[in-house]
This record gives sequence, C-alpha cells and structure tokens, in this order.
Amino acid sequence: MEYVSLIKTPIEAELSRFNALFDSTLQSSNPLLAHVIAHIRQRNGKQMRPMLVLLVAKLCGQGQVSDTALHAAFALELLHTASLVHDDVVDESAQRRGQLSVNAAFNNKVAVLSGDYLLSTALVQVSLTRHLDIFKLISVLGQELADGELLQLANVSNPTLSEEVYFDIIRKKTASLFAACTKAGALAAGASDEMVEKMRLFGEYLGLCFQIKDDIFDYAPNAALGKPTGNDMREGKLTLPALYALRHTPDETALQWASRVKEGEASSDEIDRLVTFTREQGGIEYAICRMEDLRRQALTLLEPLPGDDLKQALVAYLSYVVEREL
Amino acid sequence: MEYVSLIKTPIEAELSRFNALFDSTLQSSNPLLAHVIAHIRQRNGKQMRPMLVLLVAKLCGQGQVSDTALHAAFALELLHTASLVHDDVVDESAQRRGQLSVNAAFNNKVAVLSGDYLLSTALVQVSLTRHLDIFKLISVLGQELADGELLQLANVSNPTLSEEVYFDIIRKKTASLFAACTKAGALAAGASDEMVEKMRLFGEYLGLCFQIKDDIFDYAPNAALGKPTGNDMREGKLTLPALYALRHTPDETALQWASRVKEGEASSDEIDRLVTFTREQGGIEYAICRMEDLRRQALTLLEPLPGDDLKQALVAYLSYVVEREL
Repeated sequence: MEYVSLIKTPIEAELSRFNALFDSTLQSSNPLLAHVIAHIRQRNGKQMRPMLVLLVAKLCGQGQVSDTALHAAFALELLHTASLVHDDVVDESAQRRGQLSVNAAFNNKVAVLSGDYLLSTALVQVSLTRHLDIFKLISVLGQELADGELLQLANVSNPTLSEEVYFDIIRKKTASLFAACTKAGALAAGASDEMVEKMRLFGEYLGLCFQIKDDIFDYAPNAALGKPTGNDMREGKLTLPALYALRHTPDETALQWASRVKEGEASSDEIDRLVTFTREQGGIEYAICRMEDLRRQALTLLEPLPGDDLKQALVAYLSYVVEREL
Repeated sequence: MEYVSLIKTPIEAELSRFNALFDSTLQSSNPLLAHVIAHIRQRNGKQMRPMLVLLVAKLCGQGQVSDTALHAAFALELLHTASLVHDDVVDESAQRRGQLSVNAAFNNKVAVLSGDYLLSTALVQVSLTRHLDIFKLISVLGQELADGELLQLANVSNPTLSEEVYFDIIRKKTASLFAACTKAGALAAGASDEMVEKMRLFGEYLGLCFQIKDDIFDYAPNAALGKPTGNDMREGKLTLPALYALRHTPDETALQWASRVKEGEASSDEIDRLVTFTREQGGIEYAICRMEDLRRQALTLLEPLPGDDLKQALVAYLSYVVEREL
C-alpha cells in the first residue's frame, strides 16, 4: 500500500531515533521479564501510534521534533502495548497478530504483571518528557482506556441497544488513544491552545474511524472460514452495523438473536443469521457512511494547514485507516 | 494498640484532608466501576502508607503539609491498592482482609481492568503534585513493584535457596513502596537532598521489617487451624525463616521437602514438616534478629531529629510494624 510510504517518508529520521530509544530502554535483568519483552517485540507492530505523534509534532514544530515528543511517542506505544497484553487476559485471547498472546505463551499471572511493568515503563517515559500537560494527558488516558473496557464489559449484559453507548465506548477505548497521540505531538511542539485542540479532535475522528473499520471487519468473510467469524458477537458485543440493522428493521426474530448475543447465549447458527441479517439490512453501508462522515470532518480540520509532505502524510494516514483491508 | 494513636494524633487534621480528597476523587459514572470501588472501600484499609507520607511531610515541612504531599499520599495508596487487586488475580486469592477479593466478588476481567483504572487514577494524582521528582519516583516504583512480583514468580521455579535473592525480592515488592512514601513526603516538603535520602532509607528499612514480619506470620499457628497455614510454601515460596534453617542445618530430607515446595509438588504433610523443621532449627528467631537489626538501623537514622511528637510517631510506626500480632 502506497499510503504507508507517504506516512513514513517525512519522519524517517525521527523513526530511527524512536527505534534507538526503544531498543536501549526496553531491557531487563529479570530473565522472565526479558523473555516476555522479547516475545512482544517479535510481533513487530506497525507503530501507527508513535508515527502519529511524530507527524503531528513535526508539523507543529516547524520541522523539528524534540526529545519530549519522542518520549511521549514511546510512552503512548507502551501504554497501547500494555493495554493489549491486559485485554488478551480479559478476553481470554490466545492469539495476537498471528502469534501467541502473552497469556497463552506464558500464563495470566505473567501477562498481568508484565502489562503492569509496561504501563509503569510508559510512565517513566512520560516523566522524561518533563512536560506537566503531557503527564496529565497520559494519566487521564490510562483511566479512559480502563474505563472504556469496563464500560464494554458492563454493556455486554445491558439489554439496551444504543448507538450512543456504542460511540461512548469506542471513544473511550480506542479514539482516546489516537486523540492523545495527536494532542501530545502538538503539546510537545509547543503549539497554540487552538492548534492543540484541533489536533486532538483530528486524532479523535481518526480513532473513531479506526474502530468502526475494525468492527466492520468482523462482518467480512474470513479467508480460512469462508464466512464472517462473528467474533464480537461471540464476546457479547453488538457493534455499529448490527445496531443500525436492528433499529432500522426491528424484526422480532433478529431482536431475539440480539438479546441472546448480549446474554452470551447465542448459538453459532444464531450468530451467523444475525450477521447475514445485518448485511442484508444495509448495516455495513451505514457504518461506512458514518465512518466517511468522520473522515470528512477530520479532513476539514487539516484544510487550513500548508500543503507540505507532513499534511499529505496525515491525509494518507486517514486514508490508510479507512481503506485498509483485512 | 497504643502505637496507632501515637501515629495518628500528630496528623489528624491532615488525615481528614486526605479522606476528603479520597471521597471526592474516587467516584465513577460507570456503574460497574462504581460497584468495584465501593467494594474495595468497604475493606477500610489501615492507610499505613498515606500516614507515612503525611508524617514525613509534616516532619520535614516545619509542621506544614502541602497539597503536593496529599496528592502523593493518595497516589501511593492507590498504587498499593491497584497492586493488591492485581496480586489477588495473580495468586488466585479469594480473600483480602476478611472479605472477597475483587476477582472473587466479580471476576478476573473486572479485577485486571479495575486495577488498571486505579493505577491510572494514581497517576492523575501524581500529575496534580506538579512535582517532576515525585513523578519520576512513583513511575519507577510502579516498575519495581511489577518487577518484584515477576522476580518472585520466576524464583518459584528456581532451585537455588538464597537469602540474597530473598532480600532482592522483598526490597522490590514491599520495601520500595515504603521507601517511596517516605521519599515522597520529604520531596513534597522541599527537604534537602541529604534528608530526602535519609528518609528514603528509613522507609526502606521499615518496609523490609514489614515483609519479614509478614513472612514470620506464616509460621505462626493459625487460630482456626490450630497450626501454621504454610500458605507461602503452598505458593512455592520459601521465606527467610526456612532459608536460614535449611542453610544452618542442611538436612537431606528437609532439603528434599524444600525442593518439592519450590516445584509446587509438596504435600500438606511435607509442608507441615518443613514448617516444624524451620521452627525447631531456630528459623523464626533468626528472622526476628534480622528484623531487629533493620529496626535499629532505621532508628539510628531518626536519632539526629528533634524529639517532637512527629519523631515519636515514626518510632511508634516502626514498633507497630515489628510488634504487631496476627
């Protein structure tokens, strides 16, 4: 995909500095911890979040990226990694990006504690920014991420099917992290309050698009299975496409399947039928529409900026999020 | 016990301010989270750690306790609570101070996420101190606590029986938190570098005494059982009394029981015998000796201070830690 090189090229030097910091910091004399860190690093994540921090920092910083921005980028990547490690415990997932999750490769104990260690390492990095607003931002983010996951957990047994609750959850569990990346980048570059808020909002729209796209993937036929996995429904979650279909066509049987999904009682057959119903009632198209709306709002925020390669990289980032394929 | 009132009296006003902060901060509109918080608050912990912060802050601050000290005290209490919630998941404990643990009352998922939420709330409090050295201190502490628990976990399957490893673990998993309390109190009061270091060391000695005492409790007859529970051994842990007895009297059979404890293979009978062996070989007396040594070192640090009620409170705190009964 062309987008990735559009995103990376303008911050190549900064990504090298980032990786050097990563390598020199994430070391431990504790053999078990060193083992876990090596396991996580094998994943070779796409570093989408630190790239976002660096892009915004460079855009707001007249081409300069301070160490403050670098430490913030590292902190946010670690916070994200820590929350994935804990989420896999919470969701009892055995896989993460095609390799064993930490709980599966080791056990729940090791996963909980290494998640805590990564979280604390994130905070050490935050303290190295020596920037009180970034500190405040990232600690509040930690609360929102945990709160969002707990909200989602509580909502599993909540019979109400509401788009409002859906957006509240995805804003907290996903968009808040993207918004923190763009805000931290702007803060680190010493941007004006107005610019900081504009960048924060850009990150939030971007993050909402990211999660809606992720949720749409769950309705797409899985290559191995030949049909959608319906994983979210298996975990008791009804996402935007199904919420729309059920509201738009309040079919009695479909509503019963939905209740059973939320109670964690739905059979594979019922899940397959509810997925098909959602697709037939235009749930996917509706979710795409909402995502495209958010993308347009995000683009509007970028319009007044000078049209250099950093702006183009942010536009490409948004296109990547919205257009990426499974 | 008289000690508790000696500790509390000089900081009564500050404890009221602390409790008001606690009540106004720990609220959530998320019903599940609110439920967990209410459950944790029922425990009514003894607030030993915040009291320590407030005592040292007042001692170093000529009778004044700043909001910075208060936020640091709250942050450290929350960090401690968060790590207990996660430890109960890790140790699969169903009880905590006579009531159900969060994992038992709710489930592991809720416990992992609420621990994360409490940890993040701790960091929001740290950011309110607006004190970069306190940031650094508390984020490094988070790393040490997780590292200490992971070290202990890794050590369960380590066949070596070494006092050095034992002290390394308890320094990280317990004493580091006490040392952070005393150091944060001194930092918040703007104490000299020398005084900050002296207070940190006092906290470290105190914390080592605390853990040794806790470990000795495991060899004391349990009221309900009429014999020691040997819980640590059941979890694969050999603590100071057993380590001494095994080194002092390297009895072949006892060493075999010890290996089986570390492999998690020991029967209840073998654990009972190893507990009895430890008691007979003077393991308890040795641990008490080491603890009293540390207490003396801690007292030496206090000697040069003026002999007012705050100094007396710290002496009483140390006596409470060393002399408390199960």
